[in-house]
Amino acid sequence: MKSPITSTLDPARRDVAAAALQAALVDLVDLSLIGKQAHWTVVGPQFRSIHLALDELVTAARDFADQAAERLTAVGVAPDGRAATVARESAAKGFGDGWTKGEEVVAAIVDNIAAVVSRLRAHIDATADADPVTQDLLIGQTARLEQLHWMWQAQLA
Amino acid sequence: MKSPITSTLDPARRDVAAAALQAALVDLVDLSLIGKQAHWTVVGPQFRSIHLALDELVTAARDFADQAAERLTAVGVAPDGRAATVARESAAKGFGDGWTKGEEVVAAIVDNIAAVVSRLRAHIDATADADPVTQDLLIGQTARLEQLHWMWQAQLA
Amino acid sequence: MKSPITSTLDPARRDVAAAALQAALVDLVDLSLIGKQAHWTVVGPQFRSIHLALDELVTAARDFADQAAERLTAVGVAPDGRAATVARESAAKGFGDGWTKGEEVVAAIVDNIAAVVSRLRAHIDATADADPVTQDLLIGQTARLEQLHWMWQAQLA
Amino acid sequence: MKSPITSTLDPARRDVAAAALQAALVDLVDLSLIGKQAHWTVVGPQFRSIHLALDELVTAARDFADQAAERLTAVGVAPDGRAATVARESAAKGFGDGWTKGEEVVAAIVDNIAAVVSRLRAHIDATADADPVTQDLLIGQTARLEQLHWMWQAQLA
Amino acid sequence: MKSPITSTLDPARRDVAAAALQAALVDLVDLSLIGKQAHWTVVGPQFRSIHLALDELVTAARDFADQAAERLTAVGVAPDGRAATVARESAAKGFGDGWTKGEEVVAAIVDNIAAVVSRLRAHIDATADADPVTQDLLIGQTARLEQLHWMWQAQLA
Amino acid sequence: MKSPITSTLDPARRDVAAAALQAALVDLVDLSLIGKQAHWTVVGPQFRSIHLALDELVTAARDFADQAAERLTAVGVAPDGRAATVARESAAKGFGDGWTKGEEVVAAIVDNIAAVVSRLRAHIDATADADPVTQDLLIGQTARLEQLHWMWQAQLA
Amino acid sequence: MKSPITSTLDPARRDVAAAALQAALVDLVDLSLIGKQAHWTVVGPQFRSIHLALDELVTAARDFADQAAERLTAVGVAPDGRAATVARESAAKGFGDGWTKGEEVVAAIVDNIAAVVSRLRAHIDATADADPVTQDLLIGQTARLEQLHWMWQAQLA
Amino acid sequence: MKSPITSTLDPARRDVAAAALQAALVDLVDLSLIGKQAHWTVVGPQFRSIHLALDELVTAARDFADQAAERLTAVGVAPDGRAATVARESAAKGFGDGWTKGEEVVAAIVDNIAAVVSRLRAHIDATADADPVTQDLLIGQTARLEQLHWMWQAQLA
Amino acid sequence: MKSPITSTLDPARRDVAAAALQAALVDLVDLSLIGKQAHWTVVGPQFRSIHLALDELVTAARDFADQAAERLTAVGVAPDGRAATVARESAAKGFGDGWTKGEEVVAAIVDNIAAVVSRLRAHIDATADADPVTQDLLIGQTARLEQLHWMWQAQLA
Amino acid sequence: MKSPITSTLDPARRDVAAAALQAALVDLVDLSLIGKQAHWTVVGPQFRSIHLALDELVTAARDFADQAAERLTAVGVAPDGRAATVARESAAKGFGDGWTKGEEVVAAIVDNIAAVVSRLRAHIDATADADPVTQDLLIGQTARLEQLHWMWQAQLA
Amino acid sequence: MKSPITSTLDPARRDVAAAALQAALVDLVDLSLIGKQAHWTVVGPQFRSIHLALDELVTAARDFADQAAERLTAVGVAPDGRAATVARESAAKGFGDGWTKGEEVVAAIVDNIAAVVSRLRAHIDATADADPVTQDLLIGQTARLEQLHWMWQAQLA
Amino acid sequence: MKSPITSTLDPARRDVAAAALQAALVDLVDLSLIGKQAHWTVVGPQFRSIHLALDELVTAARDFADQAAERLTAVGVAPDGRAATVARESAAKGFGDGWTKGEEVVAAIVDNIAAVVSRLRAHIDATADADPVTQDLLIGQTARLEQLHWMWQAQLA
Repeated sequence: MKSPITSTLDPARRDVAAAALQAALVDLVDLSLIGKQAHWTVVGPQFRSIHLALDELVTAARDFADQAAERLTAVGVAPDGRAATVARESAAKGFGDGWTKGEEVVAAIVDNIAAVVSRLRAHIDATADADPVTQDLLIGQTARLEQLHWMWQAQLA
Repeated sequence: MKSPITSTLDPARRDVAAAALQAALVDLVDLSLIGKQAHWTVVGPQFRSIHLALDELVTAARDFADQAAERLTAVGVAPDGRAATVARESAAKGFGDGWTKGEEVVAAIVDNIAAVVSRLRAHIDATADADPVTQDLLIGQTARLEQLHWMWQAQLA
Repeated sequence: MKSPITSTLDPARRDVAAAALQAALVDLVDLSLIGKQAHWTVVGPQFRSIHLALDELVTAARDFADQAAERLTAVGVAPDGRAATVARESAAKGFGDGWTKGEEVVAAIVDNIAAVVSRLRAHIDATADADPVTQDLLIGQTARLEQLHWMWQAQLA
Repeated sequence: MKSPITSTLDPARRDVAAAALQAALVDLVDLSLIGKQAHWTVVGPQFRSIHLALDELVTAARDFADQAAERLTAVGVAPDGRAATVARESAAKGFGDGWTKGEEVVAAIVDNIAAVVSRLRAHIDATADADPVTQDLLIGQTARLEQLHWMWQAQLA
Repeated sequence: MKSPITSTLDPARRDVAAAALQAALVDLVDLSLIGKQAHWTVVGPQFRSIHLALDELVTAARDFADQAAERLTAVGVAPDGRAATVARESAAKGFGDGWTKGEEVVAAIVDNIAAVVSRLRAHIDATADADPVTQDLLIGQTARLEQLHWMWQAQLA
Repeated sequence: MKSPITSTLDPARRDVAAAALQAALVDLVDLSLIGKQAHWTVVGPQFRSIHLALDELVTAARDFADQAAERLTAVGVAPDGRAATVARESAAKGFGDGWTKGEEVVAAIVDNIAAVVSRLRAHIDATADADPVTQDLLIGQTARLEQLHWMWQAQLA
Repeated sequence: MKSPITSTLDPARRDVAAAALQAALVDLVDLSLIGKQAHWTVVGPQFRSIHLALDELVTAARDFADQAAERLTAVGVAPDGRAATVARESAAKGFGDGWTKGEEVVAAIVDNIAAVVSRLRAHIDATADADPVTQDLLIGQTARLEQLHWMWQAQLA
Repeated sequence: MKSPITSTLDPARRDVAAAALQAALVDLVDLSLIGKQAHWTVVGPQFRSIHLALDELVTAARDFADQAAERLTAVGVAPDGRAATVARESAAKGFGDGWTKGEEVVAAIVDNIAAVVSRLRAHIDATADADPVTQDLLIGQTARLEQLHWMWQAQLA
Repeated sequence: MKSPITSTLDPARRDVAAAALQAALVDLVDLSLIGKQAHWTVVGPQFRSIHLALDELVTAARDFADQAAERLTAVGVAPDGRAATVARESAAKGFGDGWTKGEEVVAAIVDNIAAVVSRLRAHIDATADADPVTQDLLIGQTARLEQLHWMWQAQLA
Repeated sequence: MKSPITSTLDPARRDVAAAALQAALVDLVDLSLIGKQAHWTVVGPQFRSIHLALDELVTAARDFADQAAERLTAVGVAPDGRAATVARESAAKGFGDGWTKGEEVVAAIVDNIAAVVSRLRAHIDATADADPVTQDLLIGQTARLEQLHWMWQAQLA
Repeated sequence: MKSPITSTLDPARRDVAAAALQAALVDLVDLSLIGKQAHWTVVGPQFRSIHLALDELVTAARDFADQAAERLTAVGVAPDGRAATVARESAAKGFGDGWTKGEEVVAAIVDNIAAVVSRLRAHIDATADADPVTQDLLIGQTARLEQLHWMWQAQLA
Repeated sequence: MKSPITSTLDPARRDVAAAALQAALVDLVDLSLIGKQAHWTVVGPQFRSIHLALDELVTAARDFADQAAERLTAVGVAPDGRAATVARESAAKGFGDGWTKGEEVVAAIVDNIAAVVSRLRAHIDATADADPVTQDLLIGQTARLEQLHWMWQAQLA
């Protein structure tokens, strides 16, 4: 189907914005699934703190995935957040199977957030000229994820 | 790691319950991702009704996935709800890419709910003797999904 | 019109579930109208307690009627909760006209709840094999109505 | 039983007010049951919009029935809102059985609201001298029902 | 001080409206104090029901007193709701001192509400031509007080 | 387009009601814009009190404009609340440009409310026979605007 | 009637507590009526601030009157908060009639609060030995009224 | 284990405070269990009023038990609120088994509250010098329990 | 007193249900007291997590005790949840006195939940034929307690 | 009057920011009036969806108009959002009179949003150097309006 | 400026109360800043628990500082809670710079609370005769701070 | 201690961001303390408006201080918001001691906000290249503070 949604951006700028947003969508859906996986499988004395903190991460990741997808639609491109796409294209680090000790969970979450932030940072630069509206959205998501990055890192000290 | 969580079920019953719950978990995570994908890509005169109804489906699917996973932990088995596992093992029908007309969306959602209900129905029978607590959880999820099945079907008439 | 809603039950099981649910629907709509009638016409020193307690009964009856009707739709059968149907088919005991003394109201409500519970109990048995999802709904409604049965009976002591 | 509730109106005025209110009570209870019946049996592409709009109608009809009944008590007359009375005396148009297409539902609801408004309008005139308090209640109900009449009619255009 | 608030009514109409409203103000402040007095001194098996119902009466009386006073200001006349004015000019029946049996409380409240309604009814007629805005306010207060009159009377049956 | 909305009023009565409501709509939209303009441009020691009080006026004016427009639709006439219509037909007094001292703001708001109330008062009389439902709506709006008229005037003393 | 409520205090201590509480009750009811009177009749540039602040005073005075009365009942003495009692026995300073300039209102409220606090202070001393529970209630009310005393005084500077 | 919590009180004062608080804890836990027992077993025409009022008593007793226990911890002593301790040391009067008539329930609750208040009153005196912070807590609990004592006694008149 | 509450179960079935429910009531009241005892006496680095998690356990135990008791009344048997009964008949493991290290608290709570679940599991089987309504209640409580069992066990890993 | 509000921007930058904000203010007030006009006059099968979606648009337009006006004040320039100014200077496309079919409404809203976004996009570029604070506000408004642009366009497919 | 706020205390008593309150104000502002400093700089496995618990401490400290300051105004003395005054006069122990390990944070918070409580305890004695209203405020703050003292100490065990 | 929190910025960029954020933190903590100081000591006819507006300023300042501090942690630098640091390094103008007339308070608050905004504006420029995430946070804080700057200035006109 020819796109039923026109963009307020010219095609070149739209493609830059769309590439950044599709990547963010995939990473954020994956981060939400990783957060839930850890939420269920963590064990150890810090169980309750980590279990609760992971739901805050999942909430952020889900909201940001929705923002990214709905910004894609706004620039006239259909998002793709399906399981197979996520499994194939995510830049997140992933998470092991089975019960996992609390300190391993913390370390894995720090690494996953760092990987997602790294792609977002690159796309903040890439979209500066192409679309400041998309850039502003990525800046807002990065601000929150870097705050979470600090909070998870702080537990490793 | 040897399982740190003991089960109140004997191993045979635990395995029956766990198989049902792991299948439900995978299907329900997939249903939540399918619901979001449709939420973003639907177009047509019924856009707003379908867009909103899909978020109700996503909410149900996410809550039920969490219930299934936390029941798995309660019977002593670590859940697996990661993207690759979902992409590989889901019994849902899936959803096409790109912008999708409203009536195609409705038909696809009906098919996906029906597929998930079908597996749940089989597991309601399978868990009746093994674990009535797990069975009760599956009955409750089926009740809500069959209600949604009616509501989505009604739009096809 | 041929039914636009397919059932996840085979026809024999669907008919058992539908018979139980249609009977419950009619009884519960009637119970809600009886409760309101008593709410308006009760007089006596216990007026305020009874007046308020009747609205709790009406709320339960309305919610359960809606549940029964929407479960009927889910098994593929159109519900019938119209005034004439209710007047003709309800198994409730009914309620007299005009102003009514508090103790007569209490006795009449106890009788009406008992009659509705009696039909529900029979249908809990009847649906055990046909559809555990429908049975579970009827069990939940019976639990609440038997609680109300105690509360109304307690006032007669 | 001799009426335990004295009226602040003389008998002639009380009878005018009571006749208007008893008629309104019956019509509004019937409208609430018709609204629920349609809520359950509507099918077609507009399912969700109509299904939701019907619950707003039901809420209004239930609240207004309660107002009318409690104004009857205030003028010293016991209301009658039982199923058989409603089935026998309602001036509403009624609603067919079985699954019903959306556009038929809309047309039937427009007709039912119009019939109820027509009786209310006549009683606004009839109660002007007899009891301005009752008249004010009927005016308020008519205002809301004529608003709903517009909203349902608008869907037919 | 010359009145700093101009009226949208001519002086003759303003005086009719103001007389009705000042009378209502005094009666309603008194009714709120009577309600509280009864709330504190009631004893007997119905203590809790009556104690709670009296606070609903007090809430209504306070709100209506405020409405009457603020309508007086709107027609350009300063209200007077001070204790001495209320003690001197109220048309309510009053309430005895000391602990009071529940049934005496109910009878006294019925009489007090009836006395206040009686003055309001007379002012509804008096303000019909002078100021329909003031009349509408008095009609609304009468509707609620006649509802409470029924509820308190019902306890005497 | 021939009107898709039928009226429950005959044409002569409908025209009286519609004229009153269209005038009220225009005045009230204008009052809401005037209130916002003053909210932004007021300066002086009373800034905060006036700034906040203006938002209460704007809220009332917006709600009443919506009521008037939706009553127009209910009597079968399409409302017109567009900027050019408001600029051309409003009976409000308007508001100057640029920063405005608090006492000038208060005086201007008193004058604008008075002008709107004056038209409403005339239409209360005009609609008494034509449509008591419309009249009741205008009475309710006048009651609130005359209360605000007092509150703004009180600041001038 | 012999008192139906026994006291946990011996008669001598009960009488000290009751005298303090009955005095507080009368003063606080009067303060609430004075606060409302001022709320309605204040005029001047500070109208809105004073009008709103008076409702905070009224709320405090009403709550404290209720506390004092319900503490009287707890020590076995029936309270008296009727209009004539308040008019006769209040130690508050009272409030003039008619429209009142803002600065006069502020001064009058400061004087009234000071008078009420003065009696409370005396009763805090008087009840120290007789009943620390009553004393604690009076301390809490004094704390809030002295806070309001500051806030009203601050406006005079 | 040597106490891990240091006290801000010297040992003699700590012991006085702790004795008062441990006694209050035991009595209040018992009062909460007695309240629930009565809540379940009361029968008679006043069933609903008593049933609801008992939950207010239970809420107060639970909150106060928690306050007493957490004040014990604050003065450096481990509380003991276990079932056997409560059964052995409570000064409350207890409650009979089986269904209980409303008037017997009321009398039993009055006696139980009186017994608990009596010990609290003694400890208010005992803690005055030892720890005014603990005393203030006991005064606050006594204030509420004496209010409830009045409300329950009032039903016996 | 002969039971004033009739049962909808025949005597044999009623006795099975009642035995299960009375046992659950006693265990759950004890669990709530144990949970509070631990809430007050826990010490160690995990203090805050454990302290908060225990209140969630207490809330569940209290709600379930209330459910069990009110189901007992519904089947016509008076519950017994008094301190001495609980101390004598509870199947829970109990809790030591004095300050308790976090890891000992966790282990003790795991053991107590396991003991309560064990009796519930036996009663789920026992009531399957006797009363599916009671069984459904026990299933629901077991589901939540097994979830809490996992969460507390997870902290031991 | 010389401006009483100093700007934190130098005059040249202030003028750039002010021009952008005054244009946005006018467009957004107009968009809010257009949205309401369509909200009242839309007819057709999609009536309810469109009617509700228009109120979301109106809410956004009103909030953004307020933001733009209050940013104008912050940079030291008095806003102008009066009806005549809006009618004369708005860049929105406007809306026809009378009843309007749903699909025409959707197309008109898409065009109006597009026109407003177009001016905002130009001003995002214009204010980048002059005032990043103003630019950030315009970016945020554009993000939301482009999201609404997608949602309204999607209905045309 | 001569004090515009008169005191209800004589000068000698006022000075005692004011000295206690000014000291409390300074200590509590400092405690709130210390709590925030620790909230930001804590690291270690207990990060989340400590980070959250610190915000509860900050909330208490801020509320109590406000209470102390507003009691100072009520006794006629202007408070001083500015940064330099706090830095110079606080009796709290302070907090080190840079990232801080969890266990050090806990120990430092215990010490700071203990220091603040110590001054409050001395002032409870000092104000007993001078002003029981001020004393009651200090008792209430001490109760809460000693509760927090226990909770923080418990983490050290 | 070597920093336990890694930064997503290189050291040079981190230092620019950190310098801006530490300055903002100090200024905003000071602004919150200044706002509270003024909140307590303001006197004069505008007391209530200014007293309330100051709490809005304090809320903003506290929230922004927390944002600045938690952004510092996110870039890997420990914040310093202690009293002595604030007293030494704040760029705010400060506030005099003792009771302060309303107009002096307004002027002082305008000056303090202006000083804080001036440093923020400089840091918006400084961080544009170094870290757009930090810049975006500073832009958002400046937007709100410039709005407050207008509101406080408007009172001086």
